[in-house]
Amino acid sequence: MLVITDPQKMRKYCASISRKGLSIGFVPTMGALHEGHLELVKAAKKRSDVVIVSIFVNPIQFGPKEDFKKYPRDIKKDAALLKKEKVDVLFNPSVEDMIPKDLLSYVEVGKMGDVLCGTSRPGHFRGVATIVAKFFNIIRPDTAFFGAKDFQQQAIIRKMVKDLDMGVEIVTVATVREKSGLAKSSRNAYLSAEQRAQAPALYASLLLAKRMIAAGEKSASKIIVAIKKNILSRTDFVVDYVSIVDSETFEEKKTIKRPVLIAVAAYLGKTRLIDNILV
Amino acid sequence: MLVITDPQKMRKYCASISRKGLSIGFVPTMGALHEGHLELVKAAKKRSDVVIVSIFVNPIQFGPKEDFKKYPRDIKKDAALLKKEKVDVLFNPSVEDMIPKDLLSYVEVGKMGDVLCGTSRPGHFRGVATIVAKFFNIIRPDTAFFGAKDFQQQAIIRKMVKDLDMGVEIVTVATVREKSGLAKSSRNAYLSAEQRAQAPALYASLLLAKRMIAAGEKSASKIIVAIKKNILSRTDFVVDYVSIVDSETFEEKKTIKRPVLIAVAAYLGKTRLIDNILV
Repeated sequence: MLVITDPQKMRKYCASISRKGLSIGFVPTMGALHEGHLELVKAAKKRSDVVIVSIFVNPIQFGPKEDFKKYPRDIKKDAALLKKEKVDVLFNPSVEDMIPKDLLSYVEVGKMGDVLCGTSRPGHFRGVATIVAKFFNIIRPDTAFFGAKDFQQQAIIRKMVKDLDMGVEIVTVATVREKSGLAKSSRNAYLSAEQRAQAPALYASLLLAKRMIAAGEKSASKIIVAIKKNILSRTDFVVDYVSIVDSETFEEKKTIKRPVLIAVAAYLGKTRLIDNILV
Repeated sequence: MLVITDPQKMRKYCASISRKGLSIGFVPTMGALHEGHLELVKAAKKRSDVVIVSIFVNPIQFGPKEDFKKYPRDIKKDAALLKKEKVDVLFNPSVEDMIPKDLLSYVEVGKMGDVLCGTSRPGHFRGVATIVAKFFNIIRPDTAFFGAKDFQQQAIIRKMVKDLDMGVEIVTVATVREKSGLAKSSRNAYLSAEQRAQAPALYASLLLAKRMIAAGEKSASKIIVAIKKNILSRTDFVVDYVSIVDSETFEEKKTIKRPVLIAVAAYLGKTRLIDNILV
């Protein structure tokens, strides 16, 4: 596995690959890799001649009071995992190279970035869209792979690619869950044993919503109240949002008309967890 | 000369050119071509294997009270001029294809877009940056050519390319002027005979600034007052701004320390003209 840190070297390498007529599959990550990431890598391996994985903890997608500094980093362990998956290139650039102090240009994604996670994380999706645009411009992949756990993220990247004619195919890969139902997340590492025991309630709340809809419930607000009252209030979770929205535009639904996205974000202590389900 | 209107056809054509190892030079225009544009084409011909010129009157760079509807359009005349210059491809997409109604993603250029022309044209440079990013993503040129008359525009595009790692070389071509000194501009077509006789005062005001600086004047405000008082107030020009700024950051200069950009925008009737000089 080649490890490249210099963006200019990465650009040259990718240009030479494309000139040979080989396809590039790209998996952007912030490291702290888990099985969810490895599923993205496997999907990329299946569909691409050359697979590039980036590890970059992107400062511009963290708010000033968020966990940028303490976000888990273990590049050796991550590199070993990627090597085992036969990844071709690990791209691991520096913050200085990717986000210079005089950076002025950003990709804005409009109202899609202002709802759901955007409400409590202002500027987050601008930071995500901007760094992904930069990676796409350096690597010029044929296909890029995102996880369904970050549903709003993949939808925004899809929209950005379409709006700005980026010509990258976006593939969304299903969320990988523990046996308990808890979605795999790098931030699960923050949880205490007690919190970890409670964390599956997040997915349980989505399954409750699914059962209610299957049983004919049409009122979004009734489902949201049920989730909060019957599941999350019985744990230490502090709800950020429970939302039922159109899965493409993220507009709030008052009446259930499938397909809908049910998305939830909640804090266990200082750890913010998210999950979602398409019904 | 090939004429392409479909962005997907344009993308495929450009990809096939790049795969052959040929370089692409790109000249984005809004049509109503004059000698200034043709100088861009000539520069592109010198440096590129294949030259692509776009003609697209971009609605998102016009304010609601600006001249989008009446902006001069003469595609037949323009196409004949480009053919004569041996341009390889004219890319002439529709507004519907380039700016669909559900467009949400934009490229923002921060404070560089909020000064000079950005003050009286809010959102203008966001519209310029976004459409140029879209063209760059479709065409993936090696080099793109911009005129120095729109100095702020080329500086912002340069910054966007650097910030977002677009990998396009930006070449700025000197302003083409009439014998009177008036900068060639598509908007000169709006001027009456009387206004046209007064229009060279804009460049004359820049030459006055240049002479004052050569003579040792260090005060930006004195130069600006002199321009307004001794030249522009003797015409029908209504000044939008006269500014002396850093040529890269566009920060206002109080004291002249070369190199500086002296930029002016003023209205003759409803027609807004701009000009600038690097001293």
